[in-house]
Amino acid sequence: MISKSTIKLIKSLALKKYRIKEKLFLVEGDKNVIEVLNSNYKTERLFATKTFVYENENSCSKAISTTKVEHSEIKRTSLLQNPQNALAICSLPEKQLFPEILNNNLSVYLDDIQDPGNLGTIIRICDWFNIEYLFCSPNTADLYNPKVIQASMGSFCRVQIFKSKFEQVAGLAKLSRAPIFGAFLEGKNIYTEILPAKAILVMGNEGNGIHKELENIIDRKIKIPEFSEKENSAESLNVSVATAIICSEFKRKSFF
Amino acid sequence: MISKSTIKLIKSLALKKYRIKEKLFLVEGDKNVIEVLNSNYKTERLFATKTFVYENENSCSKAISTTKVEHSEIKRTSLLQNPQNALAICSLPEKQLFPEILNNNLSVYLDDIQDPGNLGTIIRICDWFNIEYLFCSPNTADLYNPKVIQASMGSFCRVQIFKSKFEQVAGLAKLSRAPIFGAFLEGKNIYTEILPAKAILVMGNEGNGIHKELENIIDRKIKIPEFSEKENSAESLNVSVATAIICSEFKRKSFF
Repeated sequence: MISKSTIKLIKSLALKKYRIKEKLFLVEGDKNVIEVLNSNYKTERLFATKTFVYENENSCSKAISTTKVEHSEIKRTSLLQNPQNALAICSLPEKQLFPEILNNNLSVYLDDIQDPGNLGTIIRICDWFNIEYLFCSPNTADLYNPKVIQASMGSFCRVQIFKSKFEQVAGLAKLSRAPIFGAFLEGKNIYTEILPAKAILVMGNEGNGIHKELENIIDRKIKIPEFSEKENSAESLNVSVATAIICSEFKRKSFF
Repeated sequence: MISKSTIKLIKSLALKKYRIKEKLFLVEGDKNVIEVLNSNYKTERLFATKTFVYENENSCSKAISTTKVEHSEIKRTSLLQNPQNALAICSLPEKQLFPEILNNNLSVYLDDIQDPGNLGTIIRICDWFNIEYLFCSPNTADLYNPKVIQASMGSFCRVQIFKSKFEQVAGLAKLSRAPIFGAFLEGKNIYTEILPAKAILVMGNEGNGIHKELENIIDRKIKIPEFSEKENSAESLNVSVATAIICSEFKRKSFF
């Protein structure tokens, strides 16, 4: 059974202040839970159905404490609209050491991405494209927001993510001799520009784009050209979609 | 004021059966409402704040009936978590004539895309990339679902969308001498394959991919190659993200 106080704890983890206070975060969804069990994160408490525990015996054995529960209990406890069969409470990790140098690979900097779904999707994209580091500005959505974890589909366990100010990332870029690219509505065509293997790509906020103050530090402005001739066509793409297209173009140019 | 019966009507439009019964659909969000007012859709009733009507006088004059309301009333009526300043009830359009031939452009066929957010995002992508037609299988999410409209950010007014069976689309492809490409986990690398200007791209369901029965009719299987060397990296990309990357690659090859 999941006790009332645990249900209260779990529900509180939707909010950052309680995640920080408790030093815990919540992972939901079968795929996400299996991935976090098999990662470097420490799973303090696992609540799962009998079948889930039986079918994922090896993974479940990695949790410090496992409690078999009815699906109805998960349903009562879950923050999801369609709860699955497992729910894990994990320890927030220690602060990682900021990288000293960039390798010959692409990294991404997010300048105040607000929507947790967008952040989660971008983490999944970074995983797919083997992005070296994902840097998030201090005002970007919190990585341990359950909606971010959910949308990342387990990729949050594999991508190296740092919360950091732009100045710090710009310093790292300089030291590593990596040019900084920024995605703007006005910029050079990504399809015809030279996009090197080693670079940092800056993606801006959903509504306001990249902060004005960052523009001077960005070495090259790029854009995805529009293909529509209609007068009144889509003004922009969703930021996670735009990130995917630009990462795809960077990687294509290095590999094919 | 928005009457009780109108509030009831508006809330009912979340469900397809009421949309069909009433021959109406709901458009919310300032940008979406302005776009629908200026499109070929007929806006039967517009509810908006004074400021919205004042600032968008020309657009608002196109509604058959306009009612100025308080923001609190929109809030009470809206299906959105964060309601904006306007809400439009529009007529479901007459069935359009199915196209007779494909021009020298890319079209997309969605094989049972379930998530309204994904469908809306794909409509926005099709608008950006000037996709000729977007065909949706009968089991794909309904275009007039308020969540689809919301996610499309006005692009639903500009993209030509047809609900149609795959056989019909395959017939059109044959007649137009357009090859049919399908996105699979196993397929030829999109970056090195020849991707012609005129083609149909089939994208599969979120969980199950493209239906087995369609495989024999698809001319060429393609994939976005993985770049990660990690053993256990992202198994797939979100379907709207994958659609964006593949459309980008088709268009790049035709234009640059």
